[in-house]
Amino acid sequence: MTPVIEIIVVGNEILSGRTQDLNAAYMIDRMGLHGFTVRYESVIGDTVSDISEAFRIASGRSNVVLVTGGLGPTSDDVTVQALADAFDRELVLDENVLSHIESLFKRRKWFMSESNKKQAFVPAGAVPLTNSMGTAPGVLLKYDECSIFLMPGVPLEMQKMFDRVIFPRIQEEFEPEHVETASIKVSGLGESAIYDRIGHLPGAKKYFSYYPGTDGIEIKIRTDADAPMAAPQLSAEIIDILGDTVYSSKGESLETVVGNMLIAYGKTIGVAESCTGGYISHLLTNVPGSSAYLLAGVVVYSNESKHTVLGVDNSHIGQYGAVSAKVAGAMADGIRRITGASIGLSTTGIAGPGGGSVEKPVGLMYTGLSTVTETMTKKLQFVEDRLINKKRMSQAVLNILRLHLKKRFELS
Amino acid sequence: MTPVIEIIVVGNEILSGRTQDLNAAYMIDRMGLHGFTVRYESVIGDTVSDISEAFRIASGRSNVVLVTGGLGPTSDDVTVQALADAFDRELVLDENVLSHIESLFKRRKWFMSESNKKQAFVPAGAVPLTNSMGTAPGVLLKYDECSIFLMPGVPLEMQKMFDRVIFPRIQEEFEPEHVETASIKVSGLGESAIYDRIGHLPGAKKYFSYYPGTDGIEIKIRTDADAPMAAPQLSAEIIDILGDTVYSSKGESLETVVGNMLIAYGKTIGVAESCTGGYISHLLTNVPGSSAYLLAGVVVYSNESKHTVLGVDNSHIGQYGAVSAKVAGAMADGIRRITGASIGLSTTGIAGPGGGSVEKPVGLMYTGLSTVTETMTKKLQFVEDRLINKKRMSQAVLNILRLHLKKRFELS
Repeated sequence: MTPVIEIIVVGNEILSGRTQDLNAAYMIDRMGLHGFTVRYESVIGDTVSDISEAFRIASGRSNVVLVTGGLGPTSDDVTVQALADAFDRELVLDENVLSHIESLFKRRKWFMSESNKKQAFVPAGAVPLTNSMGTAPGVLLKYDECSIFLMPGVPLEMQKMFDRVIFPRIQEEFEPEHVETASIKVSGLGESAIYDRIGHLPGAKKYFSYYPGTDGIEIKIRTDADAPMAAPQLSAEIIDILGDTVYSSKGESLETVVGNMLIAYGKTIGVAESCTGGYISHLLTNVPGSSAYLLAGVVVYSNESKHTVLGVDNSHIGQYGAVSAKVAGAMADGIRRITGASIGLSTTGIAGPGGGSVEKPVGLMYTGLSTVTETMTKKLQFVEDRLINKKRMSQAVLNILRLHLKKRFELS
Repeated sequence: MTPVIEIIVVGNEILSGRTQDLNAAYMIDRMGLHGFTVRYESVIGDTVSDISEAFRIASGRSNVVLVTGGLGPTSDDVTVQALADAFDRELVLDENVLSHIESLFKRRKWFMSESNKKQAFVPAGAVPLTNSMGTAPGVLLKYDECSIFLMPGVPLEMQKMFDRVIFPRIQEEFEPEHVETASIKVSGLGESAIYDRIGHLPGAKKYFSYYPGTDGIEIKIRTDADAPMAAPQLSAEIIDILGDTVYSSKGESLETVVGNMLIAYGKTIGVAESCTGGYISHLLTNVPGSSAYLLAGVVVYSNESKHTVLGVDNSHIGQYGAVSAKVAGAMADGIRRITGASIGLSTTGIAGPGGGSVEKPVGLMYTGLSTVTETMTKKLQFVEDRLINKKRMSQAVLNILRLHLKKRFELS
């Protein structure tokens, strides 16, 4: 049987956002690799009645409930009490657990306080689970069709207990799903445009997920045994339909793909940025080894620097404005010339929030691409706030570079 | 009445751990500042029946249910359907929403697909909420004592809607707890060093939280009626103890603080980046109006460009290596000279993962600061991966610039 799995994270510090929970992500990741999927996750504060209620809800809908946190010795650690309350059990002293805790304190030469004894109590009928790293034992309580596992909240203790004791039990008792996965990254098409083109594919509704980011959209496919087509076949169909807009089926970033193309074709670039403010250079230099093809970048924010650094004709700036195709082209030519790169790239635009007008609204960008044989420019319009605009503009420019390289150098 | 508040995050990408949810933390933070505490949080996948069930559970225990995600146009966006199912409502077309979506597409000159029309349907009796940033409207449904708010999952759209439409309604209808808050941002001190210095203050354990980020550590204080000292007094004590390392008590970013100082003191800068790859320019240009002080930035990744663009002496690169105090100083001088700025800043180092050696390990950085009267350099060592190193290095340089400006221009 494939289990319904639920995670409950206990702790005021998590619920208040003071501490980021890492335990849920750890378990989701480990189980996902083996075909076990989590269906519900919740975060509850250190209140006995709230936790009890969460346990009762969970036991009615899940086969495996993985609980972290609230097993410590202090007064705000109430998870065991809440488990006992939820299913009307007494708390009973477990002699084995007590002697484990006592020996741990003796070994560490620490003074054992009364509050530590509390950790040796478990609900009647529950099984304590070894904690090789600390005093708080884990707990397993079976209720109806549901196994509830309590784990400590300290990540290292929790991970050891999960890996060594709990996940092996889950794998022994339950069957994983048969899953296959694929990823396709797309630039230059919106989520709804993608959906309109691939939404008719068999299993699209059930097995496709869309993850929009500043580097385009990632389409994730995860098929199970019931799927009409497996993930790799669906992936091939999607790539066929979406064509040039697909830039990776291996999860790579756009800057990695572009970098690999530049290396493969033996090309170098120089980048002159106005509205993107250095973000294109930042993306390119996120890739180790990018010094092989990025000769230099410049951030020319002022009109004066466009002239002094890149040699853009002041009269062009006067006549057409700094945000114009003419200036974008001259900037791309300029950076190519001063760096000696094979390709010059440029951006000039209005990131916002100020600086817009009716003719040149916020989000307007011109980008230039200069090679020894030609200078191309393109006008694009974005609509977000300053920071998002910078990121989307930068990604759009990298995508233009990618399509240029593809057209020029790939055999068709 | 003080409300019981619950958050439900919808999305397979969150539940599977593929995307980190930022929306819950955002709302918890914003509401916490005003005395509203979240009691339950859960994450549910894109399955109609699971989401419906979560809505029913929530409506029985909470007064305010804040739901994010699943309002998009694709087939895995099912939150509105789930809301209709949970309370047996029909979905009805809202003409106002439809015309908002149509006008948005017209303005962007995009083709509007059938799937976008889906976003104009709301459950009968529910109120659509304006989304100024995108096509998906929010939804408010009242059921018994409970107000359920649906918001888009895209953080920017969600934040705008929460701040402008939803949180004002909550504040109007409900009473907050009595809380006072303060924020202190610190650069150049680690979390444990900060704790060692301020951990003895009254209420520190209960009322202080620490949020480490690439721009240093933010200390947040949130005191209630029982606190021995209120947040503003504690904040003043902390600022007194931590001195120069505090760069903001208003939540501003480091680049905003530095930008304001440059404007106040009438100074301009030029930035020459090697290992930080454009990230310093990116941070500076994230601040609207930064063209007033950032004259130009250059990204000189190769040794050759350090020479050709900035005039760094090739013999210095040969003798000391590109990653050296000598070259950092020459780069800072060079960028100051070619831009005509009052201050030149530079970075040269090894971001990783490759390029390290025993003498010059990964994470080593030299930074230079050049003015008309002096050239200073500083050696710093970082220990993270490439991307984190770039960000931490960039922040360290901005902090050095801040301390320089403070020392030079602030009356003591």
